[in-house]
Amino acid sequence: MHPFSDIPSATIAALGEQKLLPRIRRWLGSAMPAAPHGMGDDCACLPVPRTGRNRAPLVTVDPVIYGEHFDDAVAPRAVGQKLLSRNLSDIAAMGGRPDAAVVALALDPRVRLEWLEGFYRGLAATARRHGVPLVGGDLATHRGGLVATLTLLGHSTGPRVLTRAGARVGDFIAVTGVLGGSLMSGHHWKFTPRLAEGAWLAGRSEVSAMMDLSDGLAKDVHALTPARARAALFGDLLPIRPGQDLRAALGDGEDYELLFTLRGDPADARRLVAAWRKKFSRVPLTVIGRLEPAGAPSDGTIDLSAHHGFAHFG
Amino acid sequence: MHPFSDIPSATIAALGEQKLLPRIRRWLGSAMPAAPHGMGDDCACLPVPRTGRNRAPLVTVDPVIYGEHFDDAVAPRAVGQKLLSRNLSDIAAMGGRPDAAVVALALDPRVRLEWLEGFYRGLAATARRHGVPLVGGDLATHRGGLVATLTLLGHSTGPRVLTRAGARVGDFIAVTGVLGGSLMSGHHWKFTPRLAEGAWLAGRSEVSAMMDLSDGLAKDVHALTPARARAALFGDLLPIRPGQDLRAALGDGEDYELLFTLRGDPADARRLVAAWRKKFSRVPLTVIGRLEPAGAPSDGTIDLSAHHGFAHFG
Repeated sequence: MHPFSDIPSATIAALGEQKLLPRIRRWLGSAMPAAPHGMGDDCACLPVPRTGRNRAPLVTVDPVIYGEHFDDAVAPRAVGQKLLSRNLSDIAAMGGRPDAAVVALALDPRVRLEWLEGFYRGLAATARRHGVPLVGGDLATHRGGLVATLTLLGHSTGPRVLTRAGARVGDFIAVTGVLGGSLMSGHHWKFTPRLAEGAWLAGRSEVSAMMDLSDGLAKDVHALTPARARAALFGDLLPIRPGQDLRAALGDGEDYELLFTLRGDPADARRLVAAWRKKFSRVPLTVIGRLEPAGAPSDGTIDLSAHHGFAHFG
Repeated sequence: MHPFSDIPSATIAALGEQKLLPRIRRWLGSAMPAAPHGMGDDCACLPVPRTGRNRAPLVTVDPVIYGEHFDDAVAPRAVGQKLLSRNLSDIAAMGGRPDAAVVALALDPRVRLEWLEGFYRGLAATARRHGVPLVGGDLATHRGGLVATLTLLGHSTGPRVLTRAGARVGDFIAVTGVLGGSLMSGHHWKFTPRLAEGAWLAGRSEVSAMMDLSDGLAKDVHALTPARARAALFGDLLPIRPGQDLRAALGDGEDYELLFTLRGDPADARRLVAAWRKKFSRVPLTVIGRLEPAGAPSDGTIDLSAHHGFAHFG
């Protein structure tokens, strides 16, 4: 659906701000608690204690932008779902759990009410599924544009926050799910953020670093690779989405899978994979390579310099 | 400064994402702590405990948008300063203190590096002044637009969070500072958020409800007015910015002053005003009216229905 309408009565401008707010409350339903824990005041007051013993507070922010992340072919529900899901994937990548979200919309006055309703209903459905209250937000005019920015608060599930730093030479590199073709297959609209998996991995001492795959494995793996090391990945090992190829698995991006490193010897890695398969029988976990010294021979490994992930501002 | 450039070498696209990130770190300087408490991971890990005895966590979000909130005549530093200041004003309005911020930028690839540097340096200067670490953010492509969205986390300074709800018929209505002509005078670029004042007011039992003035007194006062009540404001009492008139004080908006209600009899109100003047000798505090029953005679009070504040999507 094209988000803008030239029929004045179909737009948010015709309804006006004062009447729009109660509509948004209705569309969000139980996903938005009452003030001061929801919409309607200068700040939202968070409904849950944000910290406690062994819990570190986390925050992440990601937008969806008309003309960049979605176009007229996309259902507005899917846009709202994805906006929250991609932020949930960031919380998953730290081994955390989500607590609450705020959403800021910059909207052309010609935005269709119908589009906005679909967007909020999709957002609310995903919020309810993951138990994330939408505690507030902002609406602003943005002639010619449509940008939705969601900030997600969460907390670590244990004393440990699993960051991108922490991998060492010798660590194995592993990935959840299958890679490639996310845009073509529609995976990026309907993926389930790996929250349970991320929390479980953060509790395993073998796991040394973790991130989520958003810009493509070939680009993202560098963020886990320490100085004077090289990611040695084996093409034969990569879990590729059916119908896709190695190039897609390395460069397409938007996989929203977890990429992490594993300390120890091959027996440790095998033990972790076996424990994973008992716990998450329906989600593949694959060891795809190892961190080697930067100068080591690269026989048989993928030449990452020949592959590029998603580049912003390109 | 026009934020976009047609000279490729002057743009963020020419520099590219990978080289842009270290620049942003440099521009932000000490305002951005190192990861995991700052830029560089999937989430930011908040550097301070977010709650404790008698402290409620708060969150607010507000954007600045090119073509709406600023234009080519505005220095990019001022844009960055205002983005944080307007969010700080929301924390002040709940009687809170700020803890940390994340900023998400949606940027046309033609955005000038020079514009972006000014923006971040202005943001960082304001962040340092108020002790607010910028713990993370996001950069995304937005062809044809420039939207900066800041989410600010904070906490109440005591067990009480002062919301917009809580006023009753009989309460006095008071305001800090002077009103009107914010856009014309440049006040909206350089105002100091009323953080100390807001926290002090939240600690006074006479204060029953509070908000910050952003859309104009005539519109905003309705948010503090309970059902079956009417805000009786007296034009002669309004603190008007020199050179401005009553209409400007009621409708211009962007005052970023605190509007609040006071419980009790005139002697209580006088006592609070006297205590204020000792504490904040350079900031005017003015009682401008009272909450009356909806049907009460309105002799001498301002007819608010004849004045409008800022309307979004108009």
